[in-house]
Amino acid sequence: MAKDNLTAVLYGIEDLRLEQRPVPVIADDEVLLAMDSVGICGSDVHYLEKGGIGDFILTKPMIIGHEAAGVVAKVGKNVKNLVVGDRVAIEPGVPCRICDHCKQGQYNLCADMVFCATPPYDGNLTRYFKHAADFCYKLPNHVTMEEGALLEPLSVGVHACRRAGVGLGSKVLILGAGPIGLVTLLVAQSMGASTILVADLTQQRLDVAKELGATHTLLLTTQMSAEQVRDRVRQIIGEADKCIECCGAESTTKAGILATRSGGVVVVVGMGAPEVKLPLINALSREVDIRGVFRYCNDYPAALALVASGKVNVKRLVTHHFDITETAKAFDTARSRASGAIKVMIHVQPKDANNPVKF
Amino acid sequence: MAKDNLTAVLYGIEDLRLEQRPVPVIADDEVLLAMDSVGICGSDVHYLEKGGIGDFILTKPMIIGHEAAGVVAKVGKNVKNLVVGDRVAIEPGVPCRICDHCKQGQYNLCADMVFCATPPYDGNLTRYFKHAADFCYKLPNHVTMEEGALLEPLSVGVHACRRAGVGLGSKVLILGAGPIGLVTLLVAQSMGASTILVADLTQQRLDVAKELGATHTLLLTTQMSAEQVRDRVRQIIGEADKCIECCGAESTTKAGILATRSGGVVVVVGMGAPEVKLPLINALSREVDIRGVFRYCNDYPAALALVASGKVNVKRLVTHHFDITETAKAFDTARSRASGAIKVMIHVQPKDANNPVKF
Amino acid sequence: MAKDNLTAVLYGIEDLRLEQRPVPVIADDEVLLAMDSVGICGSDVHYLEKGGIGDFILTKPMIIGHEAAGVVAKVGKNVKNLVVGDRVAIEPGVPCRICDHCKQGQYNLCADMVFCATPPYDGNLTRYFKHAADFCYKLPNHVTMEEGALLEPLSVGVHACRRAGVGLGSKVLILGAGPIGLVTLLVAQSMGASTILVADLTQQRLDVAKELGATHTLLLTTQMSAEQVRDRVRQIIGEADKCIECCGAESTTKAGILATRSGGVVVVVGMGAPEVKLPLINALSREVDIRGVFRYCNDYPAALALVASGKVNVKRLVTHHFDITETAKAFDTARSRASGAIKVMIHVQPKDANNPVKF
Amino acid sequence: MAKDNLTAVLYGIEDLRLEQRPVPVIADDEVLLAMDSVGICGSDVHYLEKGGIGDFILTKPMIIGHEAAGVVAKVGKNVKNLVVGDRVAIEPGVPCRICDHCKQGQYNLCADMVFCATPPYDGNLTRYFKHAADFCYKLPNHVTMEEGALLEPLSVGVHACRRAGVGLGSKVLILGAGPIGLVTLLVAQSMGASTILVADLTQQRLDVAKELGATHTLLLTTQMSAEQVRDRVRQIIGEADKCIECCGAESTTKAGILATRSGGVVVVVGMGAPEVKLPLINALSREVDIRGVFRYCNDYPAALALVASGKVNVKRLVTHHFDITETAKAFDTARSRASGAIKVMIHVQPKDANNPVKF
Repeated sequence: MAKDNLTAVLYGIEDLRLEQRPVPVIADDEVLLAMDSVGICGSDVHYLEKGGIGDFILTKPMIIGHEAAGVVAKVGKNVKNLVVGDRVAIEPGVPCRICDHCKQGQYNLCADMVFCATPPYDGNLTRYFKHAADFCYKLPNHVTMEEGALLEPLSVGVHACRRAGVGLGSKVLILGAGPIGLVTLLVAQSMGASTILVADLTQQRLDVAKELGATHTLLLTTQMSAEQVRDRVRQIIGEADKCIECCGAESTTKAGILATRSGGVVVVVGMGAPEVKLPLINALSREVDIRGVFRYCNDYPAALALVASGKVNVKRLVTHHFDITETAKAFDTARSRASGAIKVMIHVQPKDANNPVKF
Repeated sequence: MAKDNLTAVLYGIEDLRLEQRPVPVIADDEVLLAMDSVGICGSDVHYLEKGGIGDFILTKPMIIGHEAAGVVAKVGKNVKNLVVGDRVAIEPGVPCRICDHCKQGQYNLCADMVFCATPPYDGNLTRYFKHAADFCYKLPNHVTMEEGALLEPLSVGVHACRRAGVGLGSKVLILGAGPIGLVTLLVAQSMGASTILVADLTQQRLDVAKELGATHTLLLTTQMSAEQVRDRVRQIIGEADKCIECCGAESTTKAGILATRSGGVVVVVGMGAPEVKLPLINALSREVDIRGVFRYCNDYPAALALVASGKVNVKRLVTHHFDITETAKAFDTARSRASGAIKVMIHVQPKDANNPVKF
Repeated sequence: MAKDNLTAVLYGIEDLRLEQRPVPVIADDEVLLAMDSVGICGSDVHYLEKGGIGDFILTKPMIIGHEAAGVVAKVGKNVKNLVVGDRVAIEPGVPCRICDHCKQGQYNLCADMVFCATPPYDGNLTRYFKHAADFCYKLPNHVTMEEGALLEPLSVGVHACRRAGVGLGSKVLILGAGPIGLVTLLVAQSMGASTILVADLTQQRLDVAKELGATHTLLLTTQMSAEQVRDRVRQIIGEADKCIECCGAESTTKAGILATRSGGVVVVVGMGAPEVKLPLINALSREVDIRGVFRYCNDYPAALALVASGKVNVKRLVTHHFDITETAKAFDTARSRASGAIKVMIHVQPKDANNPVKF
Repeated sequence: MAKDNLTAVLYGIEDLRLEQRPVPVIADDEVLLAMDSVGICGSDVHYLEKGGIGDFILTKPMIIGHEAAGVVAKVGKNVKNLVVGDRVAIEPGVPCRICDHCKQGQYNLCADMVFCATPPYDGNLTRYFKHAADFCYKLPNHVTMEEGALLEPLSVGVHACRRAGVGLGSKVLILGAGPIGLVTLLVAQSMGASTILVADLTQQRLDVAKELGATHTLLLTTQMSAEQVRDRVRQIIGEADKCIECCGAESTTKAGILATRSGGVVVVVGMGAPEVKLPLINALSREVDIRGVFRYCNDYPAALALVASGKVNVKRLVTHHFDITETAKAFDTARSRASGAIKVMIHVQPKDANNPVKF
C-alpha cells in the first residue's frame, strides 16, 4: 500500500493544513478507499470560518470533506458487495444500527451517527479513507467519479423532495438557487413536478436554474417583504403545493409559508438563526406542514439511479476543479462571491483518471 | 311548525341578544332541526369579547353557537339517511363539495366552507336550525344529546391525534388541560397511547386529567422556561413521541418542540399570536414536524363511535348547565376563571327531554 | 342551439346504432358540451360484444363512449370555472358527493357514481352532452382535443402508478403493452422510475413501448410459465419494486407476484376471470401487497399537467381516426387484431377544428 | 456458569429430544440468557409433525422454541442497554442490519435474518441461550416472564393491525379465534376499533373472544359458503373496514374479501395452501387491498407497552403450564384438540421464580 496519505486537516478557524496521515486499517466489514473526488460543501466552509456549526464544535483537528467518491483499494473479509477496483460513491454517515431510529428506517436521526467531517469525526479529503462497505455505492461505468461525489448533495435534494411529498403534477416553489436549491430542482422535475418556480437574489443562478429545467424563475431583492414574495409567486404560478426553502433566512421561510396552498408542505432545508419568527397561525389554520430535513436516509440509491439514467445533468453544477494540493485555493474559490462558483470539486487523483467514460 | 324560534344573536362586542327569528325553510337535501344542546366554545367567547378571530370579523349580526345536537323536525325530499324524530349530532361546517380540497378528502380546508358562527355564517344556538342532512349524525339511544353536542370538541381531539399520528405505544405530551386538551387526552388513550403526560398551569384541571386517564401530570408555572419544561417532561416520561399543544402560547409551543423526540411530531391546536418565535433549527435538524389542525374532517364518525362505545366519559367535561333563556349567564360562567368551568352547556329544550336513557 | 344531435346508442349485443337524440337540458351546476373527440376503450368493445361487464349489464339502450373531450356550448348559472368556448377534457364519472367515500377523497368508490357508458348511465359519443362543470378540465391552447380525450386512459395510468407508489428510482415491471400498459409506462417514467420493463405477447407493441421510453422489453409467449417469466425478468432487471399488471390473465398476475421484491407492490389493472388462483403464500410471506385500481380519483389534474408539460407523447397512442358517422368501422378497427390498432379515436367534429395548435 | 444446559432439539418428524448442549459463548454485542418461559407456537408443532414449513426444511437437528423470555446471565462488553439480572422478552429474529430492507425499517423482510427455530437456526427452548442485546426488551417488575414470552404472538397481532391500518372507530372482522386471532383482537381494541366481530368454528374460543372484549362473535360451520359468511357478517356489523384473516383457509380468505368494504384492507395472517383461488375482480374493482404479514418489525416495544399498561389480559391465553422436562407432554397438549389448549407455556425455571409480582 502506498505510504503517501496526504490529508486536509482543519486545526481551527482559518487553519486548514495539508499533512501526511497514516493509511487507515480496515475492519472486517469495511473497505479502504483510494479517494478520487471530493466536493466542497457550504458546511465545510462554515467549519473553516467559524470552527463549528450549532452544537457541533471543533475541539481537535478534524479531516475535512464529505461529498466524495473513491476507488476500492482493499476489502474486509466480511465484505460481499464490493471488490478491489470498484468505483464507489460514499454515503458519509454510518449509524449505530441498533437504536430505534436505525431499526425504524430513519438512520439519519441516529444519535450515535459517525458522520464525515462532523466533529469529532474525520472526513475524507485524504488519499486513503476507510468506510463501512454497505455505505459505498458502486458506480456504473458511464457515471463519473465527480458525479459519484455529487450524489451527496443530490441525496439532500432527494430527501427534501421526498419529505415534501413532491409528486406528479406538483407545483413546487424552490427558494434559493445555490447547490442545494439546484439539486432540489433536478429531483423535483424527476419526480413529476409540472411547475417549478426557483427564486433567488442572483440572476446568474436563476439562469442556471432555467437551463436545468425550472419552468419559472423569480429574482428576489433583499427589500422584498414576505408578503411581496408571496404575491409575486401567486402571479406567476398561483399557490404552490410544496415549498422547499433552501436559503435559511427568516424572511424566505415566512414567504414560503404564505405562498403555499392550504394542506401543502413547506420543507426547510436551509438553516439560519436558532430562533425564527414565523407566521404560525397562518400555517396552522391552513394545515400547511413545516418539516425539516436532516441529511438523507435511504436516498443514495435513488440519487444514483437518477444520475445513471442520464436524465439529470449534475455535472453542470461543478464550476471549478482543483487538485488536493490546491485545497486552500479551492476553499477560497468556494467562499468567494466573485468567483461565480456553484460547486467546487477537489481531485485527489487526476481528473478523469478513474473514469472509463471521460467527461 | 312552532312559531317560537328564540335565537341568540351576536350584534357586536359584548352585545349578545335573544330574539325571535323566522323558522328556516329547508332545501331538498337539508333537514330542519329542533335544537337541544349547544356547548359554549372558547371561540364563541372570543367573538363576544373581541368581535372577531383573525381574519374572521363580525360585520353584521350573527347567530352564535356551533357545538350542538338536535332532533330532526322535517326532512328534505332527497334526504335518505334521516327521518323525523332522529336525534342527531351536528357537524357545523358544510363545504362546497366541488373544489380540489373537497374532492381530495380535506373538506376542512375548503375555501367556501359555510361554518356555523363563523362570520358571515349563522350558528345554531336557536330553537330551529336547518342543516345539510349528510352532516348530521344519528345518535344511538344510549348516547345523550349533550354527548352529541360534545362530539364537536371531541372531533377536534380526534383530528389532532390523527394529525399527530398517535398510535399503539405512543408517548404523548399534551400541553394544556382545557376542554381541548382533555378531549385530546381521551382520544389519545383510545388510540393506544401508553403514556400521556398532561401539563397545565392549574392543578384543578390536572386533577380532572388524572381522573380521565392521564398517566402523568405536570403543574406548570408561568415562570418556567421552555427548557425547564422540557427537562421536567424528560424526567417524568423521557422524550415524547408526539406533542399536542393546546395552549397557544409561544413558550409552550417552544417547549413542545424541545420535548419531542427526533422524528416526532408537534401538533399545534392552540392559536396565539399571529407571529411566533420558534426554535426552528432544533425542530428541523431533528426532523420534528410541526403541524396545525383546522377544525376536523371525517372525524365525527370516529368521535361518535368512541362515545357510543362507552370507553370515554365526555360528560365529565360539562361543569355547568343553562337554559337558552339564561344565555348571558352561561357566557359569563364560561369566561369566568372563578367558575371552575370546563364546558358550559346550553339547553334549548329541557335537559334530558330527548334522551331515552337519562343522565 | 343546433338540432342535430347524432348519437351512438348501444341497443344490445352487436347492435350499435346512430340515431338522433334530444339535446340535453342542463342544471345550474352543469355545462352543455359540443363533443369533439371520443376514444374507444376496451370496455366499450366489451359492452358491444357481450352486453355487459361483470355486474354491469345492459338492460336498456345506452349511449356509448367515455374517453372524451368537448367544447363548452352553454353554462349553468352556478358555474364559475368555465365559460362558453372553453375546450375541456371530461372526467366521465360524477359521484354523489355525500357518502363517506366522497368525503374521504375516494370518490371513485362511491356506490352512487354516475359514470358514462356504464349501465344504466349514458355515455358521450354524441354531438351534445351535459356534464357537471367541476368534472370538466379546461385545456391550454397547445393541448389538442384528442389529448384531452386521452386524459381518460392516462388517468388510469396515473391512478395505477399512485396506487403502486412508483417513485424516484423505482424498478417497475409492466405486464401488457396495450393502451393501459403504455400510458402506465408514460406515467411511471414521469414519476421517476429509473428502470421500466414492459412485457407483452406482441413485438409490435413492445416496439412502441421502447419508442415511448421503456428501458427494457420482454417478449412473452403463451407457453411461458409464471416461473419462467419471473426468471426472465430477474435476468433483465433483477427484482421489481412495483409490478403493474395490465393483462388480466391469471398467469401474468402470478408472474407479477413472483417477480416483485419482498415489501413491493403488485397493482392489478387488468381484470380477467372472477376467480383467480394466486400464489398467496409467496405474496403474504414476503409482504408483497396486492392492490386493485378502479378507474381514477383526483388524477385528471396530474394527467393534464403531464400532457401540458410536453414531457409525454400520448398522441403516439392513437393509430386510427374516424368520424362519428363511421362509428361502426371505428369499432371494427378497435377490435381487429389485424388492424394493429392501439387507440382508435372518433371525431364528432372535424379533426383539429377546435385546436388552436394543429397536430 | 452452570453446566446444565438441558435443551429441546428437534431431530426430525416426531423426533423431539431433550439433551445437554454446551452453554453458548457470547459476542461483544450479545447477552447470555437464563431462559425462563417458552410458549409453543403452531409453527413449532408444524415442524414437529411435518419437518418443515414451506421452503424452510429441517435438514439437521434444530433447537425448538421462539416465544420466549429469560433473565440476563452475562453481558458482552459492548452492551449498554442491559445488566445481569434483567428480565427480558426476546424478539427471536436478528437481521443482517446492512441490506436495503434493514436500512429502510423493514428488517422482517431481511433475506439474511437469523430467526429462532427456523431452519437452519436454533431456537431457545434451552436453559442457556445467547442473543443480540438490542433484540432483548427489559420487562418492568409488574410484567411476568410469561407475559414476556407472550409478547411474541402479541407482536404478530400488533404487526397485523398496523398493516391493516386499524384505527379509531374501525369496524374489524377477525376470522379465527386461535391464539393469533385473540391477540389480534386485543390489539385492535387497543388501537381504537369500535366494533370487532370474531368468527370461528368453535364456540369455546368465541367465548374467550367475548370475554376478551369482542363486541360480536359469529360461529362458523364448515358448510357455510364465503357468500353466506359475508351475509352473516353484514347482518351483524355491516361491512367491515378491515378484515384480519387468521385461519389460512381459502374459504375464509374469500369470505374476508367479500365482507370488507370498498377501499378497505384484508390482512391475511393465516397461511394455508401455496396457491389459493380468490375473488380477485371483487377485490380489485372495489380497491380492497390484500396484504400479508411476515412476523413483526418494530412491534415489540408497542406490545410491551400494551402489556405493561395493564389494559390487556394476555395471561388469559395461557391454558397449560409444563416444565421443560415435560416438553413432550407439552407438545402433545398443544396439538390435541381435546385439550382445549389456547397457548401452552413451558417453564425452563420454576413458574414465577423470576417474577417480583407473582401471578
